[in-house]
Amino acid sequence: MKAPEAWYNILADLDFDLPPDLPPPAYRDGARLDPQVPLSLIRQEMSRKRWIPIPAEVGRRYARWRATPLRRATELEAALGTRARLYYKYEGDNPSGSHKLNTAIAQAHYYKAAGAKRLAVATGAGQWGTAVATACRMFGLECVVYMVRTSLENKPHRRTIMEMLGATVIASPSDTTGAGRRFTDEHSGTLSIALAEAMEATKEPGTRFCAGSGETYSLLHNTVMGLEAHEQLAEHGEHADIVVAGLGAGSNFAGLAFPFLRPGFGPTRCVSVEPAACPKLTRGRYAYDFTDSSEQNPLQKMYTLGSRFVPPSMHAGGLRYHATAKIVSAMYDRGLVEAVAYQQREVFESAVLFARAEGVVPAPESAHAVHGAVVEAAKADRDGRSPAILFSLSGHGLFDMAAYRSYLDGRVDVDIEVTEEDIARSLAHLPAQPEPV
Amino acid sequence: MKAPEAWYNILADLDFDLPPDLPPPAYRDGARLDPQVPLSLIRQEMSRKRWIPIPAEVGRRYARWRATPLRRATELEAALGTRARLYYKYEGDNPSGSHKLNTAIAQAHYYKAAGAKRLAVATGAGQWGTAVATACRMFGLECVVYMVRTSLENKPHRRTIMEMLGATVIASPSDTTGAGRRFTDEHSGTLSIALAEAMEATKEPGTRFCAGSGETYSLLHNTVMGLEAHEQLAEHGEHADIVVAGLGAGSNFAGLAFPFLRPGFGPTRCVSVEPAACPKLTRGRYAYDFTDSSEQNPLQKMYTLGSRFVPPSMHAGGLRYHATAKIVSAMYDRGLVEAVAYQQREVFESAVLFARAEGVVPAPESAHAVHGAVVEAAKADRDGRSPAILFSLSGHGLFDMAAYRSYLDGRVDVDIEVTEEDIARSLAHLPAQPEPV
Repeated sequence: MKAPEAWYNILADLDFDLPPDLPPPAYRDGARLDPQVPLSLIRQEMSRKRWIPIPAEVGRRYARWRATPLRRATELEAALGTRARLYYKYEGDNPSGSHKLNTAIAQAHYYKAAGAKRLAVATGAGQWGTAVATACRMFGLECVVYMVRTSLENKPHRRTIMEMLGATVIASPSDTTGAGRRFTDEHSGTLSIALAEAMEATKEPGTRFCAGSGETYSLLHNTVMGLEAHEQLAEHGEHADIVVAGLGAGSNFAGLAFPFLRPGFGPTRCVSVEPAACPKLTRGRYAYDFTDSSEQNPLQKMYTLGSRFVPPSMHAGGLRYHATAKIVSAMYDRGLVEAVAYQQREVFESAVLFARAEGVVPAPESAHAVHGAVVEAAKADRDGRSPAILFSLSGHGLFDMAAYRSYLDGRVDVDIEVTEEDIARSLAHLPAQPEPV
Repeated sequence: MKAPEAWYNILADLDFDLPPDLPPPAYRDGARLDPQVPLSLIRQEMSRKRWIPIPAEVGRRYARWRATPLRRATELEAALGTRARLYYKYEGDNPSGSHKLNTAIAQAHYYKAAGAKRLAVATGAGQWGTAVATACRMFGLECVVYMVRTSLENKPHRRTIMEMLGATVIASPSDTTGAGRRFTDEHSGTLSIALAEAMEATKEPGTRFCAGSGETYSLLHNTVMGLEAHEQLAEHGEHADIVVAGLGAGSNFAGLAFPFLRPGFGPTRCVSVEPAACPKLTRGRYAYDFTDSSEQNPLQKMYTLGSRFVPPSMHAGGLRYHATAKIVSAMYDRGLVEAVAYQQREVFESAVLFARAEGVVPAPESAHAVHGAVVEAAKADRDGRSPAILFSLSGHGLFDMAAYRSYLDGRVDVDIEVTEEDIARSLAHLPAQPEPV
């Protein structure tokens, strides 16, 4: 198939405007805005053009592993005994092992063009850190990764692969920044501390902070997945009746689903799958909120559980973000996309079924899409339909064997309960909402 | 490209006969031969036909992930500043993560056709166990894997993935067999004990023992790699001047190299790379020897360090076999293929260079081919040549992060020394050699 030459910007096809971002309370007190984001990315964030050309150099990098495979999951279909046709788009074969490389490469390109010598990032589970480390070595940039200390201790192999790729990996909290020095050496760390450390690292000349999820441009860059999948399904003589993807901050879901919502195609139901432990769409509120716990960045209107929401410990670290991208949120609010939430036990059950049938081990995040597809297939069988269901296998799970071990040993048995009180307590800390216009 | 419809049997094109296998001393004492190998595989072992058709069902399975990628290593070329053109054939993207699936699927097919219900295997590092576990679930066979206890303790994730694929994994020595019960629970295990346990498991009705390396048919099944690579290079307008592959028992090297030695093509130099810790071709003897330490199987004429040779501990567990396949041995003896041996420190250095440049982490076994290619490129540059060099990236190294950690931490610093005395001591135990004809 022919490689996409442009990313798809769904903003061009929405008949409403997104609620504008608002300055955070800190700015109202006179703090200076220093976004550090290159103008090229800000322009993409604001653009209403339907197609944003992929720079030649980015396209050349994509071509090293794209188009990624679209496979029909015939063995899974047989194992389920379903009459639905199941297809999956597999993003795990690339150097960094997940879809996050699609935006990491684009961002490295734009940051380098804007003069950056080094990128600083924060990572929880390690996928974003690995993706940026990979992109940096492609573009000759240095890379420093602040990784949550407890994650680093639980997943030492993530550190190793990032160091192999040439990145400097620092356990957060660290003594390399003021933000880190506020904590003791024994502190287990959080993503918000790691973010604060990575942002502080930009005081070093030539260093820029690089964020991987939720931004409109990171959703945009990932649309190569859906554009390819649409073409690949057409080669099978198919159109997706249902698209299913895991939902964290939104780049995986949007990247696969949005191209199927283009005018003139469809109809396609787009189902996002979130973990029951972090149910921002299914149980959160559509409100202005902070995007991270620094409370320094512009407020965005999103479905959120509140930036102080601490999800219960779970294996799909990439889906633990308290909110989801403002575009996905606005579309969900208008009923243009759907959402479901599942317990990790049932998600692992489907993941192991999938691995046995198809021989590919999904990342726990991707396993949510697998389970979503399994549920949709069962529903269709009950209703006597036989839809084509496309789901996103956004990354491999070869660094997540400890999580699968827990599941096989029966240690993922208890449902995770998030109470209404948990959510209400967190939402009580939402910033003041603007007056309705 | 069109998928190969037949495996290539180089025996058809050799102008000499292989020395015949001989019964081991145990048989001369009246022990009964019970090879358990299906007639279909024995026929392949003996065949002189150039092309052995790939059964439709095996071809259909191959098509799930083959043809595997052939990529030009442009970033590695740039990092080396070489004028050589470097290509690699990547076998790590398949469900089991290495080339071993090529023969595992074929063998599962033939064993199932011969009535097997369950396959028993021994595995050291875990790649063969993972490949057979994958193949078994494809064909609805049960799978029991005896894995060397110390390997299992060092690589717990290998156990997890095999169990996810439905295999039963048993630490060897175990109390499930007489061969295992001869040892205490604390024994760290060896591949030869694991082999003895897996063979004993065949006392269970419907269970067959399945061996993964060195047999002529396992070399044959892997020729899909070389046949594809030959076509893929032709699409680049190239022919390989040099083919480089790591050498254990021979299926990886032979699978990639043999198709390039077909009459009418070439010339191609085929360079096998062995670890300095287990230098069977470069420092062993061409003699009849036992294929395993049970001393129950037919003697084969091979380059060998002696079946009692214990290689020093090293990270490329898949290259620790004491001998190499009889075809590879005979061809090396006649100067038709070449061999070099390298220290693991220099091998890791090239592996990390490759990972940084190309973004793919090689298995330590595959890293030997990477280093061999780097050396050949440097030689060519010195000589003012610019050859096309094809090397085998036979598997990914995502389960070998602990080995890379050792390297990054400077713990792979000392060269491994195998003395002439070590080798002579082991070779003193070769079985009695037949009289020269």
